[in-house]
Formats: sequence, structure tokens, C-alpha cells
Amino acid sequence: MSKDVERLAGAPMDPEAFRQAGHALVDWVASYMTRLESFPVLSRVQPGEVRAQLPAAPPDAPEPLEHVLRDLEQIVLPGITHWQSPNFFGYFPSNASPASILGEIASAGLGVQGMLWLTSPACTELEQHVLDWMVDLLGLPQRFKSSSSGGGVIQDTASSATLCALLAARERANGWQSNERGLDRRLVAYASDQAHSSVEKALAIAGVGRENLRRVEVDGELALSVPALENAIRRDREQGAVPFFACATVGTTSSTAIDPVRAIGEVCAREGLWLHVDAAHAGSAAICPEHRALHDGVELADSYCFNPHKWLLTNFDCDLFYVADRAALIRTLSILPEYLRNQASESGAVVDYRDWHIPLGRRFRALKLWFVLRLHGVEGLREHIRRHVAWAQDFAGWVAADPAFELCAPHPLNLVCFRLRGEDEPNAHLLEELNRSGELFLTHTKLRGKYVLRMAIGGTWTERRHVERAWDAIRSTAVQLRSAQSIRM
Amino acid sequence: MSKDVERLAGAPMDPEAFRQAGHALVDWVASYMTRLESFPVLSRVQPGEVRAQLPAAPPDAPEPLEHVLRDLEQIVLPGITHWQSPNFFGYFPSNASPASILGEIASAGLGVQGMLWLTSPACTELEQHVLDWMVDLLGLPQRFKSSSSGGGVIQDTASSATLCALLAARERANGWQSNERGLDRRLVAYASDQAHSSVEKALAIAGVGRENLRRVEVDGELALSVPALENAIRRDREQGAVPFFACATVGTTSSTAIDPVRAIGEVCAREGLWLHVDAAHAGSAAICPEHRALHDGVELADSYCFNPHKWLLTNFDCDLFYVADRAALIRTLSILPEYLRNQASESGAVVDYRDWHIPLGRRFRALKLWFVLRLHGVEGLREHIRRHVAWAQDFAGWVAADPAFELCAPHPLNLVCFRLRGEDEPNAHLLEELNRSGELFLTHTKLRGKYVLRMAIGGTWTERRHVERAWDAIRSTAVQLRSAQSIRM
Repeated sequence: MSKDVERLAGAPMDPEAFRQAGHALVDWVASYMTRLESFPVLSRVQPGEVRAQLPAAPPDAPEPLEHVLRDLEQIVLPGITHWQSPNFFGYFPSNASPASILGEIASAGLGVQGMLWLTSPACTELEQHVLDWMVDLLGLPQRFKSSSSGGGVIQDTASSATLCALLAARERANGWQSNERGLDRRLVAYASDQAHSSVEKALAIAGVGRENLRRVEVDGELALSVPALENAIRRDREQGAVPFFACATVGTTSSTAIDPVRAIGEVCAREGLWLHVDAAHAGSAAICPEHRALHDGVELADSYCFNPHKWLLTNFDCDLFYVADRAALIRTLSILPEYLRNQASESGAVVDYRDWHIPLGRRFRALKLWFVLRLHGVEGLREHIRRHVAWAQDFAGWVAADPAFELCAPHPLNLVCFRLRGEDEPNAHLLEELNRSGELFLTHTKLRGKYVLRMAIGGTWTERRHVERAWDAIRSTAVQLRSAQSIRM
Repeated sequence: MSKDVERLAGAPMDPEAFRQAGHALVDWVASYMTRLESFPVLSRVQPGEVRAQLPAAPPDAPEPLEHVLRDLEQIVLPGITHWQSPNFFGYFPSNASPASILGEIASAGLGVQGMLWLTSPACTELEQHVLDWMVDLLGLPQRFKSSSSGGGVIQDTASSATLCALLAARERANGWQSNERGLDRRLVAYASDQAHSSVEKALAIAGVGRENLRRVEVDGELALSVPALENAIRRDREQGAVPFFACATVGTTSSTAIDPVRAIGEVCAREGLWLHVDAAHAGSAAICPEHRALHDGVELADSYCFNPHKWLLTNFDCDLFYVADRAALIRTLSILPEYLRNQASESGAVVDYRDWHIPLGRRFRALKLWFVLRLHGVEGLREHIRRHVAWAQDFAGWVAADPAFELCAPHPLNLVCFRLRGEDEPNAHLLEELNRSGELFLTHTKLRGKYVLRMAIGGTWTERRHVERAWDAIRSTAVQLRSAQSIRM
């Protein structure tokens, strides 16, 4: 390591020193990739254990990079739950990829802040362009394109996208007055009882109130019941409330249930509700023509989002949020202080993404998605999705064939919900034992009141052998627990 | 370039191929750093010019990395407004640094999602720890520490921090009922007429309504007038409204005016208002003991934020948001669906940052700040701030000594507001000419109705010579414009 790297002053590290240090960091990341399987997936540290190893104050003088790398290895790594491990099957994946990391390096190096078109035209235009590409790749409606009445924007998460959709819906339902005057009537929103918690959070934030969310019941496949939705809307109208927003989920977090978007969209069109489609996880699958049916009826939606940062090899954060009527979104979120005025914006010829989300500033996030699309190619991404779906179907077959277990929900994509037949407690115990082993990581949910294990297959580095080994571990651990239980009894 | 890099399949690039490609990207960034001065600071592309060079669809098959690097160079770079140029003096800086980029590489490589303590304890604990460090470094009140009643969290931007503060204030003012039931009374917020547009945006989002923001008048130094604040609160109470929130700005966006935080805090304490202090840009300066007075009275604040991504060498996005009472924030933003339940959270021994902001998921952003603090050392960061403040004072001296120009506001830190004496139009013309030259980039604002140029000195790579050259360019361009004007007249 050169002296320049070791003794950085108040002045920045010079480019040559950065080059050397950057190579060292890239090598560390590459080494981490080769070692992913060697770590317990779920971190084993106790609360406070990481902090206890950190000094009470940062150094006054610059420290050598080696010290930071040493602490990264010795203090940080043991405190990591390895989302990139091939044995991570919890929640939904958050699959980073080498291609995306390259895009992140370019983005960090350029260090642009794209709040306005003017503040880096390429940051805005590459984002518009790549998001238009995705409309075609996913079979989304043309009106979501920037060349039409709508457009897409990268948000941090689906939670923020849902909030923005709900705010625009609130404004539309209030004759564009509530931004200015606050709320003066009772608005009501609808989502299935399986919808993501972010819908409830958005209602709280927007001042509408969580109690004005109708958690509509679901059918046998855990998808929203359209007759129940219609009944709920009718009851609310009778009581003088104003139905204004519905969220249909394409792939719920608990079980990847697919709400009937077309039928919900027809209700929303008739009733004048804003329809938001939350396809945060499952949307990525529509890059494969055989999964395009996921998006049936999305042309009736006012807004839509999905997260390439979940299942499309793009580093967190990267949620793609589309609206059919960009004017409605911009009208809801735009504020123009003098210090941001400029001729390009006033010409009307450009898009200023600051008006499309909560924050003012923004990173150049389109780069990582662009790198992923180009370095994998569309066919590569389809293979990536297909492998996971196939392995999930294999896994579901193994579960179905084992009389000790049962499947708990349809498994159209890469998530399998299953459980030991019988009570909840052995299932919770099984999950705990599996996660404690460090060999793999699963999470749980509740479906129809029952404790259920979730096996979400979507890791960048996951291969079929990891799925096979996971099933072996699940089955053998269940057998062990059962015999231990018998002995105790 | 190896064949592996060139022909990436659906499978991820292998670690060795990533290592090579990562070195290539780091080399590209290092090369960009050496070339920063060679580009026109403000991009010269016309609207649509970047998009016109991009293909209508992404490739089906993987492309070689060289093609992406070529397009990065030939299509993206001309579309960049170079925020990292040493001649960028617009808005506020967004100063990336080599040290921070190294932290970004580590963060991208680990690819963790830190929504819960459990999902990577180090992601949460390093963030708590580094944010506690910053409390001491900036002379912030001890109650903002995680070891006390409060705590800090990294948000994307000050806009989001302000929104979260305002939501917690709204809940507190409504007896913790408005999340659930929506708003049932007229709430009123206060900020100076120089406060950031995000306050207004937050009121709109929260359903309070922009018309319920009192834009309190300012004194001769563009700081909020406390008697005017007291009068406004009195008038609102008389009219049956409920004053609930005030935002004091430490370093306004237009002019770095410093509101009298202590006096405002005393009013807020007496009147029961939530006080949020927005020190987005200026807060970083308090790392120098001689600027610690910026934070006088902050111990009276309920919340506070500043952005290391502006002036503390940390890549966007990195806003540090502190609250004195974390329970109030968590109560406002927490929602716990079954699929996120876990023993660590239920033990109460850990912090789950998902409850501290709008999004659910989160990146490991503390790493980049940790890298910056360690690789620069606290003294290094102080030098960084001191240089910019000194150069801004030099610049202000040059302006004051030139009879054609006038200073327009106090310049306590690194921003100088100035203008040609006389009408607005020559000033707008001057700005346009300077930015068109590509030699430097400035932006404008309006102060007391007059068009004013802003010279914000805070770039990572800026040296005194760049500031000198900027002044030469400003003065000589003004002279040229004046003589051209005389000839036309």
C-alpha cells in the first residue's frame, strides 16, 4: 500500500492512491463472494456485540486503509446476515450481482445528483430510457412509457412508491385541494388482508388514517375477493365515506398470491378509484413470456411498481414506479423554489425527477440497472428467473411427497409456503433450529392463522444443490426434533 | 478482458471475472477524477440528446463490458453536469470522495438489507455507533445519542428527515390518534420564509396542507424573526388552530442564514411545539470547534438533521437525522406484520431501523461515513471545512472591494451571495454566460426580491486556484457584457 493511501490528509486521496485502494476493495468483495458459503447465514452476534468492539470516538488523524479492511473483516463480517449467501431463503431475496456492483462503482464515482434534468441530463434520460425498456420487457401497458402520458421513475422501495401513488390518488379524489388545505372528507382505501404493510403505513403518513383501510378478505388462493371489494365500497359509500384508492398485489409478501388485477381494475374504473399494483417481488418474473399473465389487467392501473433489487440482480435500492398519468404525480409532488428554477425546466422539454418522489436529491441509480441489462442480456435474466421458478417447483414437489409436511399456498413462482402438519409450535421450533444451524436461513409468516415456513429461492449465487441441501436439512432437522420430542414425552 | 467477463450468462459473473471488471471500473473512476477539470461543468447536451444515442431495446445476449465502458465514456459523460468538478459552485456541494467511494464498494459488495437488527446486526450497530460519534463531533446534545432517550438514523435526504419529524409532531399534537383516524383539527406549522421547500412538501404529504404553513418573516440577516413567530402563533391560537411544529434552519439554502435556534426553542418549549432543526448543509461545519456556535440552542430541539453528503466528503445519499425521543418517532412509523416478527425485536434489546423512516428496506450506508471518518480523521475533516470557509471569506473580500458588485447576505460559512449592482437582468445574463462557458458553474436565488448569484465553495477537489479563477471569470465576463451592452446602446 502506498504512503498516499496510508496518510490521507484533509485533502482527498489522490486518484492514483484511490486506484490502488479501489482495487483492494474490489479484491475484498471478490474474496467475500468466494467465501459466501463459509459463513453462518444468520449472524450469530448478540445485541451490542458489534458496538462493543468499536472505539468510543473516531480517530483524530487518518488511519491506514489496512486498519479499516481489518475491521471490516473482523468486526463487520461476523455481524452480517448474509443476504447474498446461496443458502439465504428468507423474506424475499435482495439479490445483488457483480454486474450491478460495477454499475454502483460507476455511479459512486460520477457522484452526480440528478434532482433536475439540468443537474445531469444523462442521469434523467438514461433512467427514462431504461424504464421504458422495462415496460416492453415486462409486457406493461404502453401508457406507462415516457413517450406516452405516463412514465417511470426509480424509487428507493415499494413502500415509497405506494406512498406516492396514494398521495396522487388522495389529491385526485380531493379535486387537487388537499395538498393545499389538508383533508376535509373521509377517504377510504382498499387492499387485501394479505397486502404489504406499506399500504397501511402510507395511509397513516398521508393523514388519511389506518382505520380507513379496508382489509378485504381473500379467496381460497389468498387473492383478493372481488365481490368482497365491491361490497366494502358500497358499504363505505352508504356511510358517506369516499372510496379513493385500491392496491392490488401481484405476489404478496406472505405467499406470492396474485390478486385478480383485471377484475379489480374494472371495479376501480367503474367506481373512480385509483388502482395501484404492487408487484414488488413478482413483477420481475414477467420478463419471461410464460409469466407475462401476471400482468393481465395492469393496463387498467393508474400506477404500478416492482423491485429489480429483489429478484432482478440489481443492488438495493431500485424500485421501478410507473404512472399512467405523470401530470397527476407531478402536480401532487412538485414544489419549485427560486433556487431550482432554470430554463430547461421552464421550457417544458425535460423531466425533473425531483417532482416524482419524496426526496429532492437523487443518485444515478439507472446505471446499475443498465449494467445488469447489458451484461446479462434479456435472455440471461430470463434464465436467472427460470432456474429459481423450476427449483421452487421441485422443492414444492418434495414437500408434497413427504407425509410429514404440507404445502400451504399456491406456489406460482419462487416462493413455497409449507409446514409440518399439526401444531404451530413444532414449526416455530423447526425454523429456529434451522436458522441457528447457520446452514441456511428461512423466515415465516402466518396464513389463515397458521404458522408457516417460507422458502424463497432467488439468490444470485443459489444453485440447485443449495435447494436440495436445504430440503435435506429441513427434513432431517424435523426428524431429529420429533424424536427428541418423543424422548421427552 | 477475460472471456468470462465478455460472455456473462444467466449465471452471475464469477468472482475472478468480477475482480478484473471491478478493477476496470475503479480505473475508469480514477481516470475520471484526473479529467474532472477537462469537462464543461454544466452539461451541454440538448434535451433528448442522450436518449437519441441509446438503442430502442436492451440486448438479448450479454454484451462485453467494453461496450458498456465505451458508452459510459461516449454517451453518459457528455450528459453529466460535473458535481465533482473543482469548478462546480452551484446549489450546495454534493461532495463525493475517494474514501467514501471505497465504503460504497464495500456496501455494494456485502449487499445487505438492514430493515431489522436481525437482518444484519452490524448494519444497525455501526450506524448507531457512527451517529453517536457525530453527536460528540458536532457538539449536539447528548439526548440525541442512542445511549440516551433519542438516537440517530441515516435517511436519504433532509426532505425525508423533515417529513419524519413533521409526522411525529403531528402524532404528538393529535394525542397519537391521527395515524389511526386521520386529522380532525387544523394544525399549523412555522418556518422562516427562507426555509427549504421540503417543509411545505412535508405538510402537503402529511395531509396538514400547505396553507397551514406560516412563512414567518426574517430579520436583516435573513434569519427568522422570533417576535414575528410569537405573533403568528398567537394569531393562530386565537383562530382556533393548533400550532404544532416549527422548523429552524441552520444555514438556509438561499443564503446560509442562521435562525436563532435557542430563542425559537424557548418559544417552542413554552408553546408545546415540536422543534425540528434543519442544518442540512451547514451542520457539517460544526465539526470545527470555532463553528460549534451554529448549534447553540439545539439541545431544545426535538429533532435535527444534517447531510454529510453535502459538505462532509460522503457520497449521496447520507442525511443524519436525530431525535430526542426515539419512542415518539417509532410510535409514529412502526408497523409490524407477521413476516417481520423475530425474537431479537421482541426482546426489546435491539433497534429496528425500519421503524425510523418511510421505506422498509435499507442499505448499509453507515459504511461510507465510517470510511470517511477513519481515512480522513477528524482533523482532516476539519481542514476540509476550514479551507472552504477561508476561501469563501477571501472571495467575499474580493466582491466587497469591487465597486461593480455588492454582497447580498452575511457569509458565515462557505456560501457567498453577491450580485452586480443595479438591475436583475444583467445578473441573470452574467450567470448564463458563465455557465455557458463551461469553465465554472454557479446558481442563483432571490433575496428580498432581487436576483442574486450564489458561490458555494465545498467541492472535494476544489483548490484556492479554482476560486481565484472563478472570480477572474466572473469579473471579466461582467466587464465584457457591460461593454457589449454599451456598444448596443
